[in-house]
Amino acid sequence: MEESKKKECTVHFEPSGLKVKVRSGTILLKAARRAGIYLSSICGGDGYCGKCKVIIDEGHFESRPTTLLTPDETRENVVLACQTKVLSDMTVTVPKFHTLETSQILMDSDAHRFSELAGEPTAGVFEYDPLVQKLCLEMTPPSVQDHTADHERLYFAIREKIDAPIMQTGIRILQKLPSVLFKANYKVAVTIGHRGGTTEVIEVEPGRRCETNFAVAVDLGTTTVVAHLIDLTHATTVDTEAKYNSQINFGEDYIRRIIYVEENEAYDEMQNRIVHDVNDLIVTLASRQKIDLQDITAVICAGNTAMIHFLLNLDPRRIRKEPYVASASFVPPIRAAEVGIQIDKRGLLYCLPSVAAYIGSDIVAGVLTTRIYTKKGISLFVDIGTNGEVVLGNRDWLACASSSAGPAFEGSGVKHGMRAQAGAIEKLDILGDGSTEYKTIGNKHPAGICGSGLLDILAELFINGIIDRTGRFITDGESRVTEADEGKQFQIAPADGNHHEIVITQADINNLVRSKAGVFAAIRVLMESTQTKTEDLDAIYLAGGFGNFLNVRQAVTIGMLPDVPIEKIQFMGNTSIAGAKTVLLSRKALEAAEEIAKSMTYFDLMSHPKYMDEFIKASFMPHTDLALFPSVAENIMHHA
Amino acid sequence: MEESKKKECTVHFEPSGLKVKVRSGTILLKAARRAGIYLSSICGGDGYCGKCKVIIDEGHFESRPTTLLTPDETRENVVLACQTKVLSDMTVTVPKFHTLETSQILMDSDAHRFSELAGEPTAGVFEYDPLVQKLCLEMTPPSVQDHTADHERLYFAIREKIDAPIMQTGIRILQKLPSVLFKANYKVAVTIGHRGGTTEVIEVEPGRRCETNFAVAVDLGTTTVVAHLIDLTHATTVDTEAKYNSQINFGEDYIRRIIYVEENEAYDEMQNRIVHDVNDLIVTLASRQKIDLQDITAVICAGNTAMIHFLLNLDPRRIRKEPYVASASFVPPIRAAEVGIQIDKRGLLYCLPSVAAYIGSDIVAGVLTTRIYTKKGISLFVDIGTNGEVVLGNRDWLACASSSAGPAFEGSGVKHGMRAQAGAIEKLDILGDGSTEYKTIGNKHPAGICGSGLLDILAELFINGIIDRTGRFITDGESRVTEADEGKQFQIAPADGNHHEIVITQADINNLVRSKAGVFAAIRVLMESTQTKTEDLDAIYLAGGFGNFLNVRQAVTIGMLPDVPIEKIQFMGNTSIAGAKTVLLSRKALEAAEEIAKSMTYFDLMSHPKYMDEFIKASFMPHTDLALFPSVAENIMHHA
Repeated sequence: MEESKKKECTVHFEPSGLKVKVRSGTILLKAARRAGIYLSSICGGDGYCGKCKVIIDEGHFESRPTTLLTPDETRENVVLACQTKVLSDMTVTVPKFHTLETSQILMDSDAHRFSELAGEPTAGVFEYDPLVQKLCLEMTPPSVQDHTADHERLYFAIREKIDAPIMQTGIRILQKLPSVLFKANYKVAVTIGHRGGTTEVIEVEPGRRCETNFAVAVDLGTTTVVAHLIDLTHATTVDTEAKYNSQINFGEDYIRRIIYVEENEAYDEMQNRIVHDVNDLIVTLASRQKIDLQDITAVICAGNTAMIHFLLNLDPRRIRKEPYVASASFVPPIRAAEVGIQIDKRGLLYCLPSVAAYIGSDIVAGVLTTRIYTKKGISLFVDIGTNGEVVLGNRDWLACASSSAGPAFEGSGVKHGMRAQAGAIEKLDILGDGSTEYKTIGNKHPAGICGSGLLDILAELFINGIIDRTGRFITDGESRVTEADEGKQFQIAPADGNHHEIVITQADINNLVRSKAGVFAAIRVLMESTQTKTEDLDAIYLAGGFGNFLNVRQAVTIGMLPDVPIEKIQFMGNTSIAGAKTVLLSRKALEAAEEIAKSMTYFDLMSHPKYMDEFIKASFMPHTDLALFPSVAENIMHHA
Repeated sequence: MEESKKKECTVHFEPSGLKVKVRSGTILLKAARRAGIYLSSICGGDGYCGKCKVIIDEGHFESRPTTLLTPDETRENVVLACQTKVLSDMTVTVPKFHTLETSQILMDSDAHRFSELAGEPTAGVFEYDPLVQKLCLEMTPPSVQDHTADHERLYFAIREKIDAPIMQTGIRILQKLPSVLFKANYKVAVTIGHRGGTTEVIEVEPGRRCETNFAVAVDLGTTTVVAHLIDLTHATTVDTEAKYNSQINFGEDYIRRIIYVEENEAYDEMQNRIVHDVNDLIVTLASRQKIDLQDITAVICAGNTAMIHFLLNLDPRRIRKEPYVASASFVPPIRAAEVGIQIDKRGLLYCLPSVAAYIGSDIVAGVLTTRIYTKKGISLFVDIGTNGEVVLGNRDWLACASSSAGPAFEGSGVKHGMRAQAGAIEKLDILGDGSTEYKTIGNKHPAGICGSGLLDILAELFINGIIDRTGRFITDGESRVTEADEGKQFQIAPADGNHHEIVITQADINNLVRSKAGVFAAIRVLMESTQTKTEDLDAIYLAGGFGNFLNVRQAVTIGMLPDVPIEKIQFMGNTSIAGAKTVLLSRKALEAAEEIAKSMTYFDLMSHPKYMDEFIKASFMPHTDLALFPSVAENIMHHA
């Protein structure tokens, strides 16, 4: 035994064909990671999420006992990769259902729509003045009468075109400047970038290639990373792309990832993973649009505070420890290459400003996009992602809070949950006989359920009396609910030949109810702290990676949003990337974002005396206090 | 022969014992360079200055014929290294007299005095506000009530101490900031540097090491590099050091060096040489004062435009081509490490602003130091270095010009000329019998003559009727002038056992007269262009690397400076380094220097219709027009 522990074993993974050599005794999850296979793992390898199931086809192994495998699975050599040690050469099959498709870039169907949502308001509201721009300059060459040095000649020419009181140029540009200017007879394209009050000359090229200037806006989500390719010269979105955040196998939420980083000294690894994702997206967009990477001169990111820390390899440890402090809320622009992002080698990386450890720049972007900071009336902004952040306020004040809602509405922690991509059930009705009518994205065979579908299901199960106000399945005389190995469940789509059935389980419902309760409790704390009544709300803006056909009424039905007239609620899509794009295209928008970040008052729910109380009250459908949801009460009456 | 060209030869150099392997056919000057031996070479290897003489003790070689060697020398196997090919293993003796002592750092006796000259005015004139400073910060650690991020907490604390509206921090500092702050319980020493309108956080260290903060001010001369070590916290000069510019064997003046660079694609080599010199000086100063290099946080340089280009590896080629354009006159601060200067790895390199290709930042430093830009009356500033630059003006206008005077008064191009260092004759009288009374620096046996000594000699030879008004030795009945191999000469000190005699030759005198004529012609052009009369001059400031006992009257006697009452003339020493130090210690002084550089009007003498005329008129002692020098005319009458 001792001897075998030291020997080297080759592990073959099927169907990918990838293989890796590891020492005997290595945990199979680690071996897979090293082979480049990212198994889903919500718990970060702690052995309780049951997501990292694989089948051992051949070879010796040692597995810890678990209740997460059925007797059938155990018989078929299904194991949890995180609980299994490699003891010999082996062949392992990774079920398709359980892999994260990180190597395959997934088109985000929503992204296009979000880009449309985000595209137009900007142009009207903020003047076009992008953070990075190319200028065509035609200078008069030096003469005996005018022997101004090349560097100062360039500055004069730039300042004739734009406002740039403080300018900076790196030594590499200075070194090549004279020969570029001389050869081009002083007709050049200059790339300039605004860096916190200074304007930097990033590049000087001969001739007039000033039209070709692109940037990438990125929403760094805990679960999903979305990128939009922007033509900076024409202020248009050229293409969009999205993929799973491949940090996910270090933990589903960022708190768990911070713990992983700390315990494993895995700072660089965590950074490399997200940088790799961003590079993947950039390369995909650039190659699809036939754009040189060196013509991409900027990347702008919005995301929660932890994700921004991972990207920049800032120390994230104190985000999760009282008093919950970020390394930086206002991150200065740096060269993208400094963190390994592969665009033009002198291109810049911007991060939108954030408010606190648990209110990131994605939320600032949301406030910017919804413009609630300019309005006289009070608005509520709710962003449902892996966490649920809430902002309440108007042009005079802004209050915010973050509920660790969990990623249920993003499809995680839900048996058949998935991102809003092809095959996701995004809309659903339950008919009187318990049968379902649904719509999938791309009209594909149902592969799972995305956020808007989950919202529909929860509301429909409730309205149709299939679950009670606590979210529990009602089984008395209820034939639509069946009993499975893992407990009660409701079938949404049956299995057929190649496809498994799609169900919603009691555990799924419990997760969804917890999520919505967290969000609503956060809303209540902010409203009560600011003495805002439901009737004071002029507008509610809902953001998040839901599907295309989000029925906002259902968010009221389940008690996630306050019961206001439905026309006051607007679904805004991905406001994080929309805000990032707005800032990218206007210095004034960046200034606005900075003002927003400075002016927001953060409420720490963990230490708030009323939050737990509100959470318990909100853990009912729609709420313990039906008086808060008069329209829902009426609807229940109607169905009953 | 063909075969022998391919073989490898070992060349031994004596007395250093250094050796180098080169291919047969290699030029001996190059071989010496590669061995780390810097032979004097004024012409840059063109074979006409005759400075690179060496003796071949053993081995085969091939030398081009030259008239620069006497028959005796040829018999003794003396060759010009630049005209000689290595054809076999050989042993070569380098005469001590002909080596540049680049590996030996020479103490600049003047430097101490200059530092005193420069030390005090600053304190009174500009407020203490150094370009780089360390701040001791004691911040309140974060709490539940105040969860401000570390980065913003630091900014708040800095802004309580200094004016810094626009701040910047690099990613490496951000990455380590949280753990440094946390471990030090938010008591830290922060190094900040001002970079053209922005303030950068260069370093954050735990504890209170804020006293330890040094910088080095450098005067980058064509012939000599001078460095002063400054204690930034106490605004004092700690130590000074100087050495020859080791680029000198690529050409005595910078025009020749630019040609060398261009012809040999030797950009990096030229940069490495000067960076090496600066590093040598820094290491010497730091080790003598027992200071860690990482406690040196800034280097500030003043020098002519070409030297600044060489240091930064900016393209120097167009400096010497019409219309004479610099790459940059206002060089942005960069990290010193970017050019290879070895101080703190994030320390900054500043260069003072310059005016034009031929009016460098050393002259701007001189105007700053003499404060002529603040005075109501008109002043004249004359800097005698390898070139002679002249500035005329007052608080309303400043005119400037550069005469390519040559480095005669720096001791180059003069047989026994030398820098103002131990053994240099710095003061001299010629007695009635033709014997001399002199004083050497350090009271050592005379080794040569420095600038102030040369000025004395030229004036004394003239006043005593040993040379005529054209500078030619008078031999009729004149026993004090002897005839040597190279022509007529005047003995200043006899040979004695170990020491060679010290003489001044006709060629030396011709060089000195050419130099003074160039300077005076420049003064005349500026005065006539601005309609300034001699009596309009309120003050004349003379700067340069002369000895300690400069007799400014002699500069009038030989006709280098206008004939004003002697109390109006002030010798200022090295104003280049004085200005650099002033700027280092005050942001306001840097702003003043930038204003000076912008406001100076440059007169190009090469294209000026009157310059050649004035030069010819000034090539007499003191001038063709004696009416311009009434006091000198009277003196001659008196002696005659």
